[in-house]
Amino acid sequence: MPKIKKEIGQEEKKDARRVVKKEVKKQAVRNAAPEPRKGKSKGKIRIIPLGGLQEIGKNLTVIEYENDMIAVDCGLAFPDEDMLGVDLVIPDVTYLEQNQHRLRGIFLTHGHEDHIGAIPYVLRTVNTPIYGTKLTVGIIKNKLQEHALPWQADLRTVSAGSTVRAGALNVEFIRVNHSIADACCLAIHTPLGTVLHTGDFKLDITPIQGEMMNVARLGELGNKGVLMLLCESTNAERPGFTPSEKKVGQSLNYIFRSNPDKRIVISTFSSNVHRVQQIIDISAEHGRKVAVTGRSMLNIVGAAVELGYMNVPKGVLIDINEIKRYAPEQLTLVTTGSQGEPMSALYRMAYSDHNQVTLGERDLVVLSSSAIPGNEKLVGRVINELSRNGVEVLHDAAMAVHVSGHACQEELKLMQALTKPRYFMPIHGESRHLAANRELALEMGIPSRNIFVSEIGKVLEIDEKGARFAGTVPAGQVLVDGYGVGDVGNIVLRDRKHLAEDGLIVVVATVDNDHGLLVSGPDVVSRGFVYVRENESLMDEAKRVVQRSLQSCLESRDRGDRMRIKTRVRDDLSRFVFSKTGRKPMILPIIMDV
Amino acid sequence: MPKIKKEIGQEEKKDARRVVKKEVKKQAVRNAAPEPRKGKSKGKIRIIPLGGLQEIGKNLTVIEYENDMIAVDCGLAFPDEDMLGVDLVIPDVTYLEQNQHRLRGIFLTHGHEDHIGAIPYVLRTVNTPIYGTKLTVGIIKNKLQEHALPWQADLRTVSAGSTVRAGALNVEFIRVNHSIADACCLAIHTPLGTVLHTGDFKLDITPIQGEMMNVARLGELGNKGVLMLLCESTNAERPGFTPSEKKVGQSLNYIFRSNPDKRIVISTFSSNVHRVQQIIDISAEHGRKVAVTGRSMLNIVGAAVELGYMNVPKGVLIDINEIKRYAPEQLTLVTTGSQGEPMSALYRMAYSDHNQVTLGERDLVVLSSSAIPGNEKLVGRVINELSRNGVEVLHDAAMAVHVSGHACQEELKLMQALTKPRYFMPIHGESRHLAANRELALEMGIPSRNIFVSEIGKVLEIDEKGARFAGTVPAGQVLVDGYGVGDVGNIVLRDRKHLAEDGLIVVVATVDNDHGLLVSGPDVVSRGFVYVRENESLMDEAKRVVQRSLQSCLESRDRGDRMRIKTRVRDDLSRFVFSKTGRKPMILPIIMDV
Repeated sequence: MPKIKKEIGQEEKKDARRVVKKEVKKQAVRNAAPEPRKGKSKGKIRIIPLGGLQEIGKNLTVIEYENDMIAVDCGLAFPDEDMLGVDLVIPDVTYLEQNQHRLRGIFLTHGHEDHIGAIPYVLRTVNTPIYGTKLTVGIIKNKLQEHALPWQADLRTVSAGSTVRAGALNVEFIRVNHSIADACCLAIHTPLGTVLHTGDFKLDITPIQGEMMNVARLGELGNKGVLMLLCESTNAERPGFTPSEKKVGQSLNYIFRSNPDKRIVISTFSSNVHRVQQIIDISAEHGRKVAVTGRSMLNIVGAAVELGYMNVPKGVLIDINEIKRYAPEQLTLVTTGSQGEPMSALYRMAYSDHNQVTLGERDLVVLSSSAIPGNEKLVGRVINELSRNGVEVLHDAAMAVHVSGHACQEELKLMQALTKPRYFMPIHGESRHLAANRELALEMGIPSRNIFVSEIGKVLEIDEKGARFAGTVPAGQVLVDGYGVGDVGNIVLRDRKHLAEDGLIVVVATVDNDHGLLVSGPDVVSRGFVYVRENESLMDEAKRVVQRSLQSCLESRDRGDRMRIKTRVRDDLSRFVFSKTGRKPMILPIIMDV
Repeated sequence: MPKIKKEIGQEEKKDARRVVKKEVKKQAVRNAAPEPRKGKSKGKIRIIPLGGLQEIGKNLTVIEYENDMIAVDCGLAFPDEDMLGVDLVIPDVTYLEQNQHRLRGIFLTHGHEDHIGAIPYVLRTVNTPIYGTKLTVGIIKNKLQEHALPWQADLRTVSAGSTVRAGALNVEFIRVNHSIADACCLAIHTPLGTVLHTGDFKLDITPIQGEMMNVARLGELGNKGVLMLLCESTNAERPGFTPSEKKVGQSLNYIFRSNPDKRIVISTFSSNVHRVQQIIDISAEHGRKVAVTGRSMLNIVGAAVELGYMNVPKGVLIDINEIKRYAPEQLTLVTTGSQGEPMSALYRMAYSDHNQVTLGERDLVVLSSSAIPGNEKLVGRVINELSRNGVEVLHDAAMAVHVSGHACQEELKLMQALTKPRYFMPIHGESRHLAANRELALEMGIPSRNIFVSEIGKVLEIDEKGARFAGTVPAGQVLVDGYGVGDVGNIVLRDRKHLAEDGLIVVVATVDNDHGLLVSGPDVVSRGFVYVRENESLMDEAKRVVQRSLQSCLESRDRGDRMRIKTRVRDDLSRFVFSKTGRKPMILPIIMDV
């Protein structure tokens, strides 16, 4: 019985292959994935996330088939609150550096910072072509102008629907919807089967511009059989569907209609070109001029108009310096600062520090965004400052003035239903999101043994026999602070934290070691510890404590042991300070020799 | 016509007074407010918030009638993220100190930290009786044991429904519902009329223990006429009604029923006695033992049982050390840590650092709480760590496992409808909340000129002619760091921030001023700046920069001017360091003389 079954199975397979071959011919550009050849033993796929798992941001996934390797995305992350003074975080790409000879390119799904932001840093040590759609490549070009690179970046524009050959891998760009224009997912066709990387996506049945997610193509791939689905997890905890971007337009339209006597100031993410397009359209409809303020907003609107991703009716856009010529009710202002960033245009408006705009009771501010976790307090501060000045504020919680760019549970399940993957790996999310996405896969009938919750640096190997974790490669985070990339690590951060909590006491003394004499000092200087002027007696007493420690050390036989003296001074002073203040400032003893 | 009207009016008033007088006799305890005597000119009420306006926490409102003064609540606030190293924040009570001879007592609405937490600090300089309900006073007693006070605190227990005479003021305690037991609002009866201070409240028609908010009494006061309503604003942005505490019980019951094979770990605010009561009841119903862990949870449960605010069925509570004797499905654990506080019991469980509890796949963790703004990331971290270890987590966003303790918009309007105040002042909230509460008052028909959005230190004066702002008194925040109260101010915080951002470089040199010689050094020591071992050449170069600066200063004529030398060293080194790293560490030059 098994034998017969097998034969029938083979017969069916042959048929299927014939059909597929025809299709491949018809749409060679869209699907260049070679079909598995029977008889010949095939190689291994290796999937290695270098970022974006168990964390938000710095998305970077390596996909290899034998000697060929590509990277999908190359993003940055924003520092946690305990990474004091750090500007941004990029993935550790040691593995890419070590395997540069096998790397066929970095393939970008879309132009958000958490997917492209690390490119200027990574290109310093890894020279490889960068592939992306027109808007994505346009944004990177702008970015690269601010960085001096050792070589000219090799940027290649790909349109949705086409396929790039990368050694034995064929990378197909497939349209998805997201909160930035021109986003794609990637079908990576290998001799062993197709790995589908969703990038960030949602299903928008009524997109503002461009097409709906290419559900047909995804279904087609699913019917042929997708080997592995790497699926984003951002909204895996949220039930239902994410509303269409159009929904925001409806809310804004209602707000415009209800406030015919006010100036309307709308703050949103600068990269959300479609949102800005809607604001412009609705303003035009209501006879308002639109002025844009904030550096990144001006940059993106400029690029989007130039590349044809935005369509501005004639005479609607005006310069921010021209707003004085219009009454409040004739104006819409579009601004950055939706995350409450200090120094952003909205922040400066709220704190009466913007050159062209002063807000008051004739203004309505709309925060067309949601606070990224960790930014709630910053956003709250801006709302408070505006409220204090009598400005009315509408935000996400109160009105539907924002929709997410990420798939909710039903869309995530739809992606699985379309692609019918054999293996499933949740990506792009913290542990809680990956766990929730795993639950969805279980719900959709993928057996637990075929679901792989991975972490950065962990290698998943797939071959004809199955899939399994197989070792690790170097992975981690590199901190960028000023011009420094990687020169701030745990020790530096630990010291910054210590200094931040309780401040610092420096103790300096000059000693004549030969005679065991204190030549000068001790001086005791503090910063960030107590307000010295009002605590002179405490500081005087501290000095006496140090003096006694030093004296007793210098009188002893091993006075040449600097380390011992420093430790003694630190311990004595630390004990004294704690007994008086309950604090443990960093104590830095410096002993100088004459 | 007007004259007649007036007469009729007076006639009605007389009648009303007669009725009222009778009532007053009948319920002298409940309402000792003297009725306005006609003819004799009356004094002034002054309402002065010293905390809780334009901010969350440190609630404290001063209410005066001529020479008599009371304070309502005396709370603390938690530090903002930019108050580095600060443990807590208390109100500046200079005004109470200066007017101690007029202060008749501090009246507490309930036992939450933001209403009572500053008492141990304020009692050091202000000796006055403290009035509160039984649970509130019980909690303070516990608190005061940790603080050494210059005098024995005068704590007086008042039951809801009774009135305390405080000079010309009569303070009536009226039952409200809240997320802690034994909460009251205060009707402060003055010769000029009644000021109603809501405290924190919600309307819970089906409270777990105790009575529903005393709607009847509030309505009675309203019918007589409330002069001023001081109304909390926490949830003024939220539409509808806050659900009853019972709702949580229903959700928990469902969770218990659906998870008969798991150990259930529930984390909530320790002061929410009713929540803990429900957990105990439901556990008993499902045949589970309950173990409590976390210091504050143990304290409060102990106090609540002792004072009769909790009712534990026999044999249900077990010691956390006994849990080994039971199977997972026979256990409920109640724990602190619902805000993700490092070192809390739940945090230690998540990071496998709890002595008695190790969590795994047979555990279900319920966060029966919502994240206080600013704590979202901390809470998220705990959820992630639990998810990573395969522990299922249910939280507010996913299930109705928490309800707020504060009135939403409909309840806030109900409070107004009941009390019919002439004047209205929103209290307890950031500017956005006060603005939203003001909107509700406008909606309820209070004219804009009778609504006063105030701020801390601002005096509102009410007399027979009307109400108006009239000057300010000292007010602000006092930072507590370790044992230090007020010794950390803006300069110290600015230094801590600077140190936290970019670290520190200390430059030390010993000079012989008479001969213009560098005797020892310069030594350059850094902390929190760069990882020194991997940046030796940078630090060496920095040393040479300092050497050159010093040399050129010592060769000049005004080498005795220490300030000039320090400034020169700081500037030169700062410029060099910024050019190399893009950072601006704090530079601390110390010059020692021989």
